[in-house]
Amino acid sequence: MSSLWDRYQKYLLRNDTLGFSLDISRMRFGDDFLARMEPLAQKAFVSMKALEAGAIANPDENRMVGHYWLRAPQLAPTAELKAEIENCNSSIRDFVAKVYASGRFTDVLVVGIGGSALGPQFVSDALGTDDDRLRLHFFDNTDPNGIDRTLTSLQHRIEHTLVVVISKSGGTPETRNGMLEAEAAFAKAGVNFARNAVAVTGVGSALDKIAEKAGWLARFPMWDWVGGRTSIMSAVGLVPLWLQGLDMQSLLDGAGAMDAWTRGTETLKNPAMLLALMWHFAGNGRGEKDMVVLPYKDRLALYSKYLQQLVMESLGKAHDLDGKEVHQGIAVYGNKGSTDQHAYVQQLRDGVANFFATFIEVRKDRAGESIEVEPGFNSGDFLQGFLRGTRAALYEGGRDSLTISIPEVTPFQVGALIALYDRAVGFYASLVNINAYHQPGVEAGKKAAAGVLKTLAGVRGSLSATPQSASQIATALGEDAEAVFHALNHLAANDSRVRKQTGEAIGADTFQLA
Amino acid sequence: MSSLWDRYQKYLLRNDTLGFSLDISRMRFGDDFLARMEPLAQKAFVSMKALEAGAIANPDENRMVGHYWLRAPQLAPTAELKAEIENCNSSIRDFVAKVYASGRFTDVLVVGIGGSALGPQFVSDALGTDDDRLRLHFFDNTDPNGIDRTLTSLQHRIEHTLVVVISKSGGTPETRNGMLEAEAAFAKAGVNFARNAVAVTGVGSALDKIAEKAGWLARFPMWDWVGGRTSIMSAVGLVPLWLQGLDMQSLLDGAGAMDAWTRGTETLKNPAMLLALMWHFAGNGRGEKDMVVLPYKDRLALYSKYLQQLVMESLGKAHDLDGKEVHQGIAVYGNKGSTDQHAYVQQLRDGVANFFATFIEVRKDRAGESIEVEPGFNSGDFLQGFLRGTRAALYEGGRDSLTISIPEVTPFQVGALIALYDRAVGFYASLVNINAYHQPGVEAGKKAAAGVLKTLAGVRGSLSATPQSASQIATALGEDAEAVFHALNHLAANDSRVRKQTGEAIGADTFQLA
Repeated sequence: MSSLWDRYQKYLLRNDTLGFSLDISRMRFGDDFLARMEPLAQKAFVSMKALEAGAIANPDENRMVGHYWLRAPQLAPTAELKAEIENCNSSIRDFVAKVYASGRFTDVLVVGIGGSALGPQFVSDALGTDDDRLRLHFFDNTDPNGIDRTLTSLQHRIEHTLVVVISKSGGTPETRNGMLEAEAAFAKAGVNFARNAVAVTGVGSALDKIAEKAGWLARFPMWDWVGGRTSIMSAVGLVPLWLQGLDMQSLLDGAGAMDAWTRGTETLKNPAMLLALMWHFAGNGRGEKDMVVLPYKDRLALYSKYLQQLVMESLGKAHDLDGKEVHQGIAVYGNKGSTDQHAYVQQLRDGVANFFATFIEVRKDRAGESIEVEPGFNSGDFLQGFLRGTRAALYEGGRDSLTISIPEVTPFQVGALIALYDRAVGFYASLVNINAYHQPGVEAGKKAAAGVLKTLAGVRGSLSATPQSASQIATALGEDAEAVFHALNHLAANDSRVRKQTGEAIGADTFQLA
Repeated sequence: MSSLWDRYQKYLLRNDTLGFSLDISRMRFGDDFLARMEPLAQKAFVSMKALEAGAIANPDENRMVGHYWLRAPQLAPTAELKAEIENCNSSIRDFVAKVYASGRFTDVLVVGIGGSALGPQFVSDALGTDDDRLRLHFFDNTDPNGIDRTLTSLQHRIEHTLVVVISKSGGTPETRNGMLEAEAAFAKAGVNFARNAVAVTGVGSALDKIAEKAGWLARFPMWDWVGGRTSIMSAVGLVPLWLQGLDMQSLLDGAGAMDAWTRGTETLKNPAMLLALMWHFAGNGRGEKDMVVLPYKDRLALYSKYLQQLVMESLGKAHDLDGKEVHQGIAVYGNKGSTDQHAYVQQLRDGVANFFATFIEVRKDRAGESIEVEPGFNSGDFLQGFLRGTRAALYEGGRDSLTISIPEVTPFQVGALIALYDRAVGFYASLVNINAYHQPGVEAGKKAAAGVLKTLAGVRGSLSATPQSASQIATALGEDAEAVFHALNHLAANDSRVRKQTGEAIGADTFQLA
């Protein structure tokens, strides 16, 4: 055991100014691992420096990658960009002040998906209180029932609901659909949508034009050098979260402080590089182990989901930067401790050893005093007991883990956490030579969906009063019979004019117009 | 493509009475796979029949496994058990009627963890509406800040809040802590806790005795033959969800209908057995692939988390039934589509091929009419497009998937979904020869935590006005220095009498009483 204490002292990295520590002592890397990785680490530092200086770090899309400038505008590569960021932030603050002063609003409906929803959802939940100025709601999907549910909950306050539509291109179908559904609900309620609508979008995008033409309340920019999953500190996050009443300046400051620290090129003193190296060690640089994220704090439950998006969308890539087929990535899942100890931690302890864990400890239990739940112990002592007990038990069972400790869940600390993983993901991508900043699969997914819609339109046009099977319609259309069958079933379930007659076998099902 | 349509027709299993279908055509098992597995499948059917007849199916704990009886009391192995179930359910209904009639309550605070929280959370969210009779809240952790947050949101309605404390033994620390924290909040507000408190617990348990002695409003039983993760249809789920106003009889009926279907011993006509076999195929019976659960419906988002608990806690086991070390399990994660397409689906499409997907389709889009979002298309068409497009794209990329389709998210269908996976997990456990019904790791986790608390108490007693390092205190106590160090830091962050002086190195940090 004393050797573990030695290893802990050797491999605990702490920063007293930030109140942060990272413990990599429970990862079983050998003495030579860090030395062996050092050339790759130094290469990653060089790439990161170039990225921050405005290099085309996302070559596939020919874009700069600038989320670090959002919390340190003075580092932007041109004076114009610096001014754009500063102007954007001050215009958001002015807008929020006007919204409060108007007294017109009680709620904010954020319409966005992916990075335009999950970031704001995480921060809103992590930092929200009952005293927030405005309450946030989300359309983060194109599920009609989900949309209706949110609209129903807002129905008595719709004229007091500010709608923030977030889409870089304006071409994301889920967000466009959500915007139109919201607009229709406003029209039905007889409330002027434009007077309550705000756009966060690329200058000159389809959405920007709609908002300008209809005279929406405000428009804020989304830059092509900020990716969705790292956009929380752009207008994407700042508009809704400042409206909620959160201290976003502290969040920016926390991120800036972590950024400043993780620019250091001494591997053992850079927590983001240590994280990236530990991920590499755990999965042999090929994602062979899943990353299980276990924050022991209710307010950080969505951080696991936020990291799932950040890590998997950034690292899950088919090709490396040289065009070689690599199928990289790291699977991420988790919720919160100690809750999860009564769920899947059973498997973590005893089952398949296909993961490494990341514990996140929040040192301060609560704002006020605690009651005793047993002589000498309070609820927070138990939370600490479960965290430390689980970490020890996993290690004894041969399961490695990392532990991050932060003092409290404050805007500053949340900003620092976000920045830490932004940087770690970028470093890891360098270590395995991939582009962390594009998402070709998402574009491909849109195309696949468009094909399904095309089939749906053809099928709808082929229906008549005569019963027809999927194969018959498919032959007539020159389409795939199974795709036609799915389209027919979707129509039968949702279009009251379409009737389905179930046959003995699936191929004998017929469909017709009533 | 036509061969895929043939394969789809061959391997789509549907049940028109339930409105349910399971598509296994996109799993790339060979023609011989099912025949090869058939003896194991038949063995699993025999074990399941014995389990349902009251065998000791959980040998480690010497218990029967009876969650199937909850939705078909006539199948319980004795008349006494049948009567107990029926009496429990009718007493819950009577109690709920009285609660409504009293008009005293607006909210329900459920205090529970693991199966005693996640099941009710999932069903509450899947089926809840703005018209629910009572609104549910949860203490599902021992996080003091999380507890305070929930209490703050209830502070103006505390006397109208019914507290349901759920713990089989009464010995689960998180739940006990939550109960005491709630009780303290009631005392502070000057409201009689017992008049608002309900216990769901084993007859004669520690909690049962507390509730009886204090004269709580009601007590309902938890039987030792129902495991936490399959307890949603016992008083654990029925009490809070019936209070919420959900149609739990339909939920029971749906589960009963799925149970009746999945008792059939013809493999190709049993969807639970097909699921289990597909899991076995995907991961070679050793959990080599993660299970990604993608319900394309907001209301089913928590189902992914529910299944994560059910599958991983049931299957994540160190030893098989013969005592052999096997380290089984299947890692499960997921949220909802199409939202996740803008997150980790990038990795699913392009990245590490270490998973298989389960799509869950809900055929009906919404209750009312849809607006057009593009000529000829509505929001639900897009949802369908993303689901089918993603399934096709994953398959083309060599990633297998299962697709479940249900008509709507109703109590009946949710009951059927729950029952389907209850059975599939049981079958899979038989296929790989493990006990799905115990959770030794959870018990071990409690013990590990108790060790940490013991250290904490020792450390607290060792502090004095003299600054001491972790090593000094550890030597005096005969404890591990690192464990002492963690305890000291926890105290320094939460006990205002404890002062920390940070040293140059960690070992030089000192702690003292102020």
